[in-house]
Formats: sequence, C-alpha cells, structure tokens
Amino acid sequence: MNNKKPLILITNDDGYKAKGLRCLVEVARNFGRVIVVAPEIGRSGMAHAITMRVPLTYELIENQDDYEFYSCSGTPADCVKIARFQILKQNPDFIFSGINHGSNASINVVYSGTMGAAMEGSISNIPSVGFSLLSHQPDADFSQAQKYIAQIIENVINNGLEPNICLNVNIPKISEHAYKGIKICHQTKGLWKESYIETADPWDRKSYWLKGDYNNLEPENTQSDEWALAHNYIAIVPVHIDLTHYNSIEILKKQGYEA
Amino acid sequence: MNNKKPLILITNDDGYKAKGLRCLVEVARNFGRVIVVAPEIGRSGMAHAITMRVPLTYELIENQDDYEFYSCSGTPADCVKIARFQILKQNPDFIFSGINHGSNASINVVYSGTMGAAMEGSISNIPSVGFSLLSHQPDADFSQAQKYIAQIIENVINNGLEPNICLNVNIPKISEHAYKGIKICHQTKGLWKESYIETADPWDRKSYWLKGDYNNLEPENTQSDEWALAHNYIAIVPVHIDLTHYNSIEILKKQGYEA
Repeated sequence: MNNKKPLILITNDDGYKAKGLRCLVEVARNFGRVIVVAPEIGRSGMAHAITMRVPLTYELIENQDDYEFYSCSGTPADCVKIARFQILKQNPDFIFSGINHGSNASINVVYSGTMGAAMEGSISNIPSVGFSLLSHQPDADFSQAQKYIAQIIENVINNGLEPNICLNVNIPKISEHAYKGIKICHQTKGLWKESYIETADPWDRKSYWLKGDYNNLEPENTQSDEWALAHNYIAIVPVHIDLTHYNSIEILKKQGYEA
Repeated sequence: MNNKKPLILITNDDGYKAKGLRCLVEVARNFGRVIVVAPEIGRSGMAHAITMRVPLTYELIENQDDYEFYSCSGTPADCVKIARFQILKQNPDFIFSGINHGSNASINVVYSGTMGAAMEGSISNIPSVGFSLLSHQPDADFSQAQKYIAQIIENVINNGLEPNICLNVNIPKISEHAYKGIKICHQTKGLWKESYIETADPWDRKSYWLKGDYNNLEPENTQSDEWALAHNYIAIVPVHIDLTHYNSIEILKKQGYEA
C-alpha cells in the first residue's frame, strides 16, 4: 500500500450495482487508493438517515491491491460511518458519493441519500462531494461527464474544502461538446407539488405511491443551480451542516424569549 | 367542524404509541383541531428520508369531533406528505412534531426524524416546530415542560414564522421549578465520536451496532443550544432548508470555475 496516494471512500444511494457508482470509481482510481462501501439495495430518498433499530452487516465483494469494494445493509450515511469506524478504522482523505441517477439540485438536496453521505463526511471535516447526473435511467451513459468529474475531484484534492463544507455537483444529461462549463451556484428555491397514486396490494388493501412535479420558485435567477443546469452548465452548490437561520435569531428574541 | 380553529398536524419519529406524542397532542388540543399522522413503528434517525421503493399505507386509530389519529407505514416526512396530499387534501395551518424522547440539539438535528417532519412543513411555508425532551426513557414524565410547550405553540400561532423557517425546541429533563426560561440559540458545533459493537445473529453472522459519545466543540459558547440546555434553559434554534454555504461561493469561484 502506497501511503502517499490519498485514500478515497466512495459510496452512493442507488446501491452497489449501480452504473453511476462504477463510473465514479473509474475516475477516482486515477487519483488514489479507492475503497467503496455502498448500500446493498437502492436507498434513494434516505437523506441523512442512520440505522438505529437493527445492527448493520457488510460484505467484501472485490479486493485488489489498491481497491476494495464492500456492500452494506445500511443507508448512505451508515456506509460512511461503518467505513470509517469498522472497515478502515481510520478516516479517508476524501469522500465522493454517486454518481447519482437523477437530480439532487434545488430542494432535492434535503431528501438525497447521495448528499446525506457527503454531509456525513463534512461533519468530520473530510472533504466530500456528491455527484448526480440528470437522468434516472439505470443504463444512462455517464462517460460524457467524466472529464468534468475528474476536474472537480482534482480541484478538491489539491485545494481541499472549507471546514464542514461539502459540494453538491449536478450534471446535465447532454453530449460532451454541449457543456458550457462548471458554475458555482446557490440551492434554487423550489419544492415538489405532490399527490399519491392509490393502488391495492394482492389482498386488496389500499396503498399509496408518492408522485410529484417540481416547482421552481426562481426560474430566472442566474445564480441558482436549476438555471445553470437548464443552460448546460454543471452546477456546484457548497453545502453546510449548520442549519441555523441566523437572521431569525433577533426576530425571535423580540417574542418574549431570553437573549 | 369549526373552521375558525387552526388545523394542527402532529407527528413524531418515535411512533404513534409514544408517550411524548400523547403529551404534545394534549397541549395542542387547547389551540385547535388536531390531526395526528404518526409512524406505525419507531423511526428515530430517519432524518428527512422519504419512502420511494414501496407504497405507503395508513390506518385510522381514533376519530372524534375535532380530533383524528392515524398511523402510517412511512417516515416522519412521509407522514407530513400523506396527511397533506391524501388524508386531509389540504394544508394544515401548523405542524408540531414530537415530543421526541431524546435530544435533537447540536448536530443531532441532521439525523432527526422529528426535525425532518418539521423541515418538510417549512418547505411549504407551514409554520412548524419540532419538540424534544432530553430523556430517552419511554415512560419519561413530560408534564413539567407542558407550560413552556404551550407558550411556544401560542407564540407560533399568534406570530407565525419567517418563510421556510421551522423551530428546533429542546427541553432539559429537570423539575418544573428549575427551568430558567426559553433561550434563542444557534446549533452547537459538535459531532459524535463513534464505534461499532460487534454482535452475531442466531446463525453466527457478524453484525454491528452503532454507538457513540457526543463531542461538544464549543462548550463555552453561551449562544449555543447545548450551553442553554446545560444551564437549565429550553433551547430554540431557528432552522432553515437552504443548505447553501454562501460564503464559500466566492472562494470556489477562484478555483477556475464560472461566476
């Protein structure tokens, strides 16, 4: 083992068999020793969830000189924890999550297991990045984005990230020559307008599938990640884990609470 | 049905049988018509997770004139969505989540299903509050905090909250006369130092339980929620769902990306 090469942990939320994960591994192996710990099943929408009611299991799938590949029964955030505290027994130098099949721009970041894993890394000051391609197809072609993913990984390895910051990288699904570049953005204000599709199980009990349409509340804002993606830019949003809304502190103090 | 009374949705992450939920319902019924949609099993640590791979089910448990009580197979955030889009077919005026059995102060907010539900409400501008008591005991006595919970609920009903803001309320487990008041705070910088306890299932396969010790990185900061709790204050942190770290945008632009 060459200790000068950075140790890179890779995970995702689509599960260890996902094509996007394999593509990210392929890029990352040019930059260091790679260990993959990815969910054994798809864990989309798991956000920053951790497993508390049952113990976790993990399994070694592949083992080469500078490359280990595990599946784990937990969530993406669980994968980061079990990699650090049980499998590696040390911190990786970097954590890369994805490539997710589907967008994690705008409000999707709060539901995203891909970004839950990246945020988990940032809590412990491990520079972490979540990557997502705007296609839900299991067999999507990720190759056109690899050049840009390599550029972002190289930048993060060379420059690090600010304390407790991770990056949310979203990539439009277009042909390679159509990319206009990489744009630093804020999380677009937006939300899902949702409803449930009623269905019945084989015993005729009703059950309900969530469906929704995305509603962009600032479509003209050129600094938003959705604008960048709609205009063929790769969008990077710096994300932090201090959820405090500091401007509200003074407002609330006027409502009869303590300073 | 009296339409002048506010419509209050209550959920939690400890499940519909939890004592803390019943205590919150008792307080909230003084302020409006209450509908409860709570997870059918404990869903601690579920963060903002939503269910995407299986359909949801729900069940009416209790029905009175101004009070309905449902259990749901989903996460706390699912409970908010299914209440709005399927059960009520309208938005509640307020969402109160909890009372959680255990702290959601400091970094716990990012793992908390209780706060996932409150944040879910805030995305749609429904004034939402998560309440937590600093005791993991299933039979904890919540009565000593009811006066303060009523005060916070009354304030939110009378004043509303800023757009897309919810409140994270944590309550020390002390006797009623020991409370010093309610303090507006920021989320304490801190993290969990974790490890796994190895165990074996009945077929002798290894599995791993997460355990950890909380590490406060700013114990002397009198504006932090952990300081307030340690000094017998009820702590309120205003929480928002824009995860963008705006200060990092300028730093990243210097790394060769677009403006």
